[in-house]
Amino acid sequence: MRIRFYNAGILTMESDKVIKGELWTCDDKIEYIGDSKPSDRSFDREIDCKGNILMPGLKNAHTHSAMTFSRSLADEYCLNDWLYKAIFPREKKLTDEHVYWFSKLAFAEYLSGGITACFDMYFHLEAQTRSAVETGFRHVFCDSANDFGGIDTIEHYYNELNSYDPLISYKIGFHAEYTTCEENLKKVNELAHKYEAPVYTHISETKAEVEGCRERYGCTPAALLDKMGMFDYGGGGFHCVWFTDEDREIFKKRGLWSVFNACSNLKLGSGIAPVYKFIDNDMKIAIGTDGAGSNNALSMFREMYLDTVLSNAETGKANAVDPFKILKAGTSGGALCMGLDDCDVLKEGKKADIIMIDMNKPSMQPENNIVRNIVYSADNSCVKMTMINGRILYEDGIFSSIDIDETRRMCNKLLPELA
Amino acid sequence: MRIRFYNAGILTMESDKVIKGELWTCDDKIEYIGDSKPSDRSFDREIDCKGNILMPGLKNAHTHSAMTFSRSLADEYCLNDWLYKAIFPREKKLTDEHVYWFSKLAFAEYLSGGITACFDMYFHLEAQTRSAVETGFRHVFCDSANDFGGIDTIEHYYNELNSYDPLISYKIGFHAEYTTCEENLKKVNELAHKYEAPVYTHISETKAEVEGCRERYGCTPAALLDKMGMFDYGGGGFHCVWFTDEDREIFKKRGLWSVFNACSNLKLGSGIAPVYKFIDNDMKIAIGTDGAGSNNALSMFREMYLDTVLSNAETGKANAVDPFKILKAGTSGGALCMGLDDCDVLKEGKKADIIMIDMNKPSMQPENNIVRNIVYSADNSCVKMTMINGRILYEDGIFSSIDIDETRRMCNKLLPELA
Repeated sequence: MRIRFYNAGILTMESDKVIKGELWTCDDKIEYIGDSKPSDRSFDREIDCKGNILMPGLKNAHTHSAMTFSRSLADEYCLNDWLYKAIFPREKKLTDEHVYWFSKLAFAEYLSGGITACFDMYFHLEAQTRSAVETGFRHVFCDSANDFGGIDTIEHYYNELNSYDPLISYKIGFHAEYTTCEENLKKVNELAHKYEAPVYTHISETKAEVEGCRERYGCTPAALLDKMGMFDYGGGGFHCVWFTDEDREIFKKRGLWSVFNACSNLKLGSGIAPVYKFIDNDMKIAIGTDGAGSNNALSMFREMYLDTVLSNAETGKANAVDPFKILKAGTSGGALCMGLDDCDVLKEGKKADIIMIDMNKPSMQPENNIVRNIVYSADNSCVKMTMINGRILYEDGIFSSIDIDETRRMCNKLLPELA
Repeated sequence: MRIRFYNAGILTMESDKVIKGELWTCDDKIEYIGDSKPSDRSFDREIDCKGNILMPGLKNAHTHSAMTFSRSLADEYCLNDWLYKAIFPREKKLTDEHVYWFSKLAFAEYLSGGITACFDMYFHLEAQTRSAVETGFRHVFCDSANDFGGIDTIEHYYNELNSYDPLISYKIGFHAEYTTCEENLKKVNELAHKYEAPVYTHISETKAEVEGCRERYGCTPAALLDKMGMFDYGGGGFHCVWFTDEDREIFKKRGLWSVFNACSNLKLGSGIAPVYKFIDNDMKIAIGTDGAGSNNALSMFREMYLDTVLSNAETGKANAVDPFKILKAGTSGGALCMGLDDCDVLKEGKKADIIMIDMNKPSMQPENNIVRNIVYSADNSCVKMTMINGRILYEDGIFSSIDIDETRRMCNKLLPELA
């Protein structure tokens, strides 16, 4: 399958410049980027971009996709009550069928929002894998093992899911320090060393979590895991709201990824991660939506926007962070964070995970600065097309691999079973 | 022109309940809301809503529409520098032609974002009126008079624009206390008394503004204007970020409208209005986007969302404000604030200013709570139709009264003239 995009503005994300020209894909890869030129082979499809922008797909670097079941549910609780009173009791009732359909709903939301990969932490991994592969969605699992279960199956999934399908991969992870006792942390750590693999976890999401860790271990979660050697082969943390300067130094020294989830943190009253401090300190950063229950939308545009303006609000400056660095975090940063080294930028030989931004949307005009237009003003309505692994899965509002009517019907039908 | 909407979910905004049924419009008004029934006259069009939601259009209760020219421009400045270094010099160069086209771009953004009226403060009122009337957009002007001009023309516009076209109205206003000397404030005040009319102004947007007023007059802007009698016939203020408890008491006592602009305040580093305090105090509230230069999008969905979660962040509570009260502020609150008493809710006899929310968008599913879905998760992609005064102006991405290609072309062509 060869597709030619012409009359395009191309934002490769290797720089903040938009180049005018063509992009060709061949099967799952980008074959050519550059000026218009003849091709010696025919194309299966030729798309006139009419000046619209091609750019790498957004990468949702922290989410719980199947939690769409909990959107607009139990919005009245802060993190602790929300988890223990509303979410955990319902999660006990989840079956493969629930996870299959509610994940599919999330994948539809990702595709319509220009998201081409997610880094997902949840249960019922087989059902979710099936849902992702059927959709053609690029899916990286992060294990959510904790004291309630999952520690003993990490190794099984590590081997199985990393050789299952080109769209699927798996990273060692655990839910959080506060849900995982020292003995279980050590088991995760041993596996990380056995496979020389990076490890990911929720970290410093709430003030109470950090205070609890200090009581239990006399130090912050980042310091504890660092001392254990948990990050000897890299990895990263989700949220990073309550990081100390020392935590940031640990993450910087080890080259770990800090993944921000601004909407979820605001919603649950957890706080605001000082994104500008991570950027000023030249750290590796990525962005995620967290689950729908605590967001409530799964929009990377909203996350990127908030990462800029919340830093403004905290510093009292109008340009506390460079919007291009935020767009990098939302695209190439996320890809590298979750091990998708071939999905980070638009370049010949890279994977064809590409989105098209509709420049005829009023919010994308005028064209004073296209990167700023995208970071400050875009929403899902600006996504004209989403391609993953060379397949166009969403175009002009239509899903090619998801029956959205059926997905909507099934999700609402299944909802009462979780009440 | 009679239009029948059937198979609809109807959120009248008189309550938070969604009723199933039909809505009929006849010319500019809502003729019927209720169960399916036969009509003795024929319809010009019958629309199967397929379970999508009809609700009152969003009301943008504070904006500077033509400032779309400054989107993604000079994002590096805080309010004072932004105004004096980037905006004022360009505004001096603005002609009728600029205002006509850049307003039209804003109207397109409003329509695609479910906004059916705006409360606009800017110059070149004739050009903007022409742009609005040609578009079919409902437009309420608020004068922006200050020491640089406009005080002497308020009365002229008050009489002219309030009898010009059913879509156009005009309110007495001035830019702000810090740009309007006491003598000019007195002139505005005299007119308000002569016409027994409400008055609107930017108020307590930045800390520096309030401190400056205290130095000049020994009190806050709200206290100053209250003492002068400026609000004897009602009105309201835009921003209200740095209101004291006493300022809130003044506004409550006089029944004045507080209009919030969360995105703009974050972007410019001006601060965060404690929306929850206004709601807890049972005050009249409305919501606006401010201009594109300081937002940068003109999305009421983003504003409503932020008004909820920023209150969560400030209070550390997950439900600091009721999302239904925020949706009321964004619809009926805005309408009443700007004097559109017939555009506040869906009800027989009210104006047909109606939008349709597309429930097939993934972010609108599942249907745990439709009001929360809209406030916490909707964006412009969820707007399937926008009707103003009984005319469908936007439907499935198509504008019926705006040539978007031409608007985009003209805006970019005119941009260099303002450099």
